[in-house]
Amino acid sequence: MTMSLSAELWPDVQPETARRLMLAGVESFARRGYHATTTRDIAGAAGMSPAALYVHFPSKAALLFAISRSGHEQTLALVRNAVAKVQDPVECIRLLVADFVAWHARRHTIARVVQYELNALPEQELEVVTELRREIERLVREVITEGSAGGAFTVADPRTAARAVLSLGVDVARWYSERSRQTPEALGKEYSELVLRMLGARAA
Amino acid sequence: MTMSLSAELWPDVQPETARRLMLAGVESFARRGYHATTTRDIAGAAGMSPAALYVHFPSKAALLFAISRSGHEQTLALVRNAVAKVQDPVECIRLLVADFVAWHARRHTIARVVQYELNALPEQELEVVTELRREIERLVREVITEGSAGGAFTVADPRTAARAVLSLGVDVARWYSERSRQTPEALGKEYSELVLRMLGARAA
Repeated sequence: MTMSLSAELWPDVQPETARRLMLAGVESFARRGYHATTTRDIAGAAGMSPAALYVHFPSKAALLFAISRSGHEQTLALVRNAVAKVQDPVECIRLLVADFVAWHARRHTIARVVQYELNALPEQELEVVTELRREIERLVREVITEGSAGGAFTVADPRTAARAVLSLGVDVARWYSERSRQTPEALGKEYSELVLRMLGARAA
Repeated sequence: MTMSLSAELWPDVQPETARRLMLAGVESFARRGYHATTTRDIAGAAGMSPAALYVHFPSKAALLFAISRSGHEQTLALVRNAVAKVQDPVECIRLLVADFVAWHARRHTIARVVQYELNALPEQELEVVTELRREIERLVREVITEGSAGGAFTVADPRTAARAVLSLGVDVARWYSERSRQTPEALGKEYSELVLRMLGARAA
């Protein structure tokens, strides 16, 4: 059960033991916060010894970094996919927001750790993650800017608009739970309509 | 300096020592998370003994509750004020969002504790805070529902729309900092325009 979930969450991470530790890390950090969690807690939650944890991650910070980088890479991949696949700015934003929102709903526990524990990352690791965040924001801003220039959107300030679009998606992780009445996909669709209006999209 | 800030943040809390502890609590919880912070840390940050802390707050959870309740009461007051003062739904939402967003920007450190440490509240205290949150959401939903009925807004689902409106405001606390290029007030105004579009406001 846990094994197949971790493979779904981090298909690129090998071996399975490393994935199991990442899953235990996510659950522990989300429950008690990064600072209050020890490597012993995490190893225990994964059914392993602290020594076994260090084989895969040299420190608690390294584990947080693996979780955070992977989360940012996954959301960047969604954004890149929409940009590469869809030329029309309106349809591009529609796909991008639907996927981005659905990810933050479906992966809300991971997303909370990814979004709220940034300050716990060591300086160099934070720089890597910040670069990924900048790239996500840059791509969204570019679609909005180009769409505005071409008349697809009417936006006063593409920078603020891009931030608001991403903000709406990120905040889903804070409030979404398994008890929420909408599926991640349905929520993604509803939010993409709201965003298109926010951008003053033609015909939206 | 700290004294006047705490008086500005919590004008209703007496004596000043209690406010000083709340400020130290906010700073400690925001920096290390609730679970990793001890009452000793907080007392120390306030320049007091742990025993002096217990005179005002029986536990760390009681201190968190005081911070959380006050934050929710302050944002509820903003929402109530807009609803009471402005009849026109479009202008009401404009004021409400501007104030709500500006509060989350200006008070971003408090707001982070208020929004991200909910799960650390004991059950009964969480219920009180949840009631305040429901009331905030209910009021916003009501303005949107009435505005939709009267033709001021075009909204498919007032519940999702209300959540998205509040979500945009809350998430400001996550990314806003003193280095942000907009003042809280300017950001509030920009966001209120974005929200009015999102709600399909007439003439917006």
